[in-house]
Amino acid sequence: MGEYTAWVFTIGNEVVHGRVINTNSAFLGRKLVLLGYEVLGNISLIDDVDLISKFLRYVLPDSKVIITTGGLGPTYDDRTSEALANALGLQLELNSEALEMVKRKYESLGLPLTKERVKMAILPKGAKPIPNPVGTAPGIHLEIDGKVIIALPGVPKEMEVMFEGYVEPLLKSIGPKIFFAEREFEVRNLPESSAAEVVNKLLRKYPNVYVKTQPKGTELGKPVLTVYVCVSSKSKEEAESIIDSLVKDLKEGFIGSGGIINH
Amino acid sequence: MGEYTAWVFTIGNEVVHGRVINTNSAFLGRKLVLLGYEVLGNISLIDDVDLISKFLRYVLPDSKVIITTGGLGPTYDDRTSEALANALGLQLELNSEALEMVKRKYESLGLPLTKERVKMAILPKGAKPIPNPVGTAPGIHLEIDGKVIIALPGVPKEMEVMFEGYVEPLLKSIGPKIFFAEREFEVRNLPESSAAEVVNKLLRKYPNVYVKTQPKGTELGKPVLTVYVCVSSKSKEEAESIIDSLVKDLKEGFIGSGGIINH
Repeated sequence: MGEYTAWVFTIGNEVVHGRVINTNSAFLGRKLVLLGYEVLGNISLIDDVDLISKFLRYVLPDSKVIITTGGLGPTYDDRTSEALANALGLQLELNSEALEMVKRKYESLGLPLTKERVKMAILPKGAKPIPNPVGTAPGIHLEIDGKVIIALPGVPKEMEVMFEGYVEPLLKSIGPKIFFAEREFEVRNLPESSAAEVVNKLLRKYPNVYVKTQPKGTELGKPVLTVYVCVSSKSKEEAESIIDSLVKDLKEGFIGSGGIINH
Repeated sequence: MGEYTAWVFTIGNEVVHGRVINTNSAFLGRKLVLLGYEVLGNISLIDDVDLISKFLRYVLPDSKVIITTGGLGPTYDDRTSEALANALGLQLELNSEALEMVKRKYESLGLPLTKERVKMAILPKGAKPIPNPVGTAPGIHLEIDGKVIIALPGVPKEMEVMFEGYVEPLLKSIGPKIFFAEREFEVRNLPESSAAEVVNKLLRKYPNVYVKTQPKGTELGKPVLTVYVCVSSKSKEEAESIIDSLVKDLKEGFIGSGGIINH
């Protein structure tokens, strides 16, 4: 595993039990890859503090970045802050900056500060609260031994705004200086197992590329494959030049095996 | 953790890196919950044999059932069979029953058996292949020390048909005899943090229920919450009676705090 490994966590029974489709992990996985991080996996867990702590501790040694979504709200089952504190051996404390954010939000709505609302400002000691311009619960930003741990709310709109406004610039500033190129095209008339022969041969020629073929049903009775290719490199020009050459070789190989290129 | 714990794995860079939204884990999570299993989490991992093996071994002691999707196809990066063998300390071997399935499929298409196609019949020793009526790669069924480990393809249509035709009846026959009741309704005009006070009080009265409130945007400027409730019990009548009583108490509590019940 490299220097810039990342893990994504999704917290919540509703995701694990399939009542909500997990779009947060796709959003974050994509963003992290484009920032040059090596995303190893996404772990979705039920709202169980011990289980969440256990998995955070398990991946921590192999992580530069961990991002969690979910479990920051006011309800009894929102326990991500507690799990982070457990996993990292930190005390929980009322964070005055976070409390200020929560207070201002409810004051503007003309609502009092109840126990449930104050709970959203109880963060692991040393955490920086991340402003939530859309909802109420602040995010959590921790840095420990050169590792960055971020907790964001589970509501996609809040998570996305907070990621793009606060987390993305942070990860860009500490991330690798790499460039990334990708292409996608379709091949008709070629079973995936025939495409695999072509891909296997070319992977020997191109060591640092990723090729994924994906069956996409049939068109007029013939199989259709989506071919996704990506390359990362220390220079933008190199990434683009490798990918153009790879895509050319792939298309030639597929055509040679009876495939028809769609676009 | 109970006797009937389950884990779901999703294998594939395309899921972890967000090029594909993970609907398989939602499908399986939902199905397993309805069969009475306690699903603890869903782990999505890149196509890395060591990483997959490591996480399979990590959850195995706490699992009655593990279901993986993805990584069974003909391409170089399809390595779930190998990861299962590693994790469970089993040899890989050409499974004659699986080879027969793969062979018949390609014969019917008039295609030869290449190395890439034969690969799909190389399974951990002792595995039973699961027929794939839609695609080509057979699934994998292993039973070890009373635990059931199932690997299914990642293409949703194949996975769903194989789950419903083979896996679901198997898990029903060895699963808990429990019954499950659920309800969902909407509340307007009530911030989630106000709903949380009502829920917290009622959870003391009802120990074996699960209540999830989820912000669903606003309607005419007022917040709308979706409230999901579920109860499991050893009798169908008991589950239904508990849930009816809980929903009644919740609605009364929400109305008492200024909420308006939508339906």
